[in-house]
Amino acid sequence: MFVQKLKERIKNESRVIGTSILKVDSFLNHQIDPRFTMEMGKEIASRFAGEEITRVLTVEASGIAVAMATGLALGVPVVFAKKGRASTQNAGVYSAQIYYFTRRESVGIFVSGRFLRPEDTVLIVDDFLAHGEALGGMVEIVSQAGCRLAGVGIVIEKVFQGGGEKLRGQGIKIESLAAIKEMSEEHIQFL
Amino acid sequence: MFVQKLKERIKNESRVIGTSILKVDSFLNHQIDPRFTMEMGKEIASRFAGEEITRVLTVEASGIAVAMATGLALGVPVVFAKKGRASTQNAGVYSAQIYYFTRRESVGIFVSGRFLRPEDTVLIVDDFLAHGEALGGMVEIVSQAGCRLAGVGIVIEKVFQGGGEKLRGQGIKIESLAAIKEMSEEHIQFL
Repeated sequence: MFVQKLKERIKNESRVIGTSILKVDSFLNHQIDPRFTMEMGKEIASRFAGEEITRVLTVEASGIAVAMATGLALGVPVVFAKKGRASTQNAGVYSAQIYYFTRRESVGIFVSGRFLRPEDTVLIVDDFLAHGEALGGMVEIVSQAGCRLAGVGIVIEKVFQGGGEKLRGQGIKIESLAAIKEMSEEHIQFL
Repeated sequence: MFVQKLKERIKNESRVIGTSILKVDSFLNHQIDPRFTMEMGKEIASRFAGEEITRVLTVEASGIAVAMATGLALGVPVVFAKKGRASTQNAGVYSAQIYYFTRRESVGIFVSGRFLRPEDTVLIVDDFLAHGEALGGMVEIVSQAGCRLAGVGIVIEKVFQGGGEKLRGQGIKIESLAAIKEMSEEHIQFL
């Protein structure tokens, strides 16, 4: 099973810093294992079979590889929200502010209206779900664009940081390949 | 032929702003066409057959998709240099400064020494080659890490901005899938 393999790799290769930061640099956040990433994409796509997804949405940078693998499995384009201020703040640009707890800073993200149309059914994909800030921003952009949101596919959810609970409470379907209940520098406990 | 198809798409879908900015948002810099990106990766990989590449290096964000496709075709891991200041400025981190002409700002990029080893043969992959700033930074990082540089694979080279000439002058093998000799808002002239 892919999910079991993913959990093993998280246990063996990741590094926990303090109580909230999980570094998965060897295959997710700094180095990418392309074949393994393709399996992540297939697994996420399989969780949303029958949803008639027309576009995958992620945010730069470390969501791009898994979003591309998911888009390939679904046969649809991938849009990555860009960070920073939109160069053309016209009516055709959707944007949101997201707060990064790790870096303690707020960042704008934006998507051109040319790549999210009201007739789209969107699957949001990201590497991590923690406080749900990045996801919340992407959900807002999907809503601004008037698209249908099929749901959210995540590689690693840090359940204890509450983002998943908050977003599921809004009726959003979230599929996390690996959900971490608690973690310390010595131990990672999956749900 | 893939390269011909790529040039057609650049002609039909990109937007030239002024004399130096080329926006290829529909399949490269904002939206990704996953199947088309896989073909880019295969094409780049084929140009370096026999080089015994062990790692692909790119820089976040828009190089990631094509680097992943190239890594998949070559069967090797992909490392993406991160932007910003390395959180741990220890001896195991390689870094360089790159200047972005478009945004008129200098940005630090860094790679952990865990993912570039002296025994590696590295292929650098990026979406664009313009003034060669980002590439120069990556070349410097490969050199700091003591790796062998097999060469550079680029999707679109803007020849008239001189980065390619400068880097080829240093003896670096650069393969660009589409090389633009000159462009204006009305016309794109390939080499």
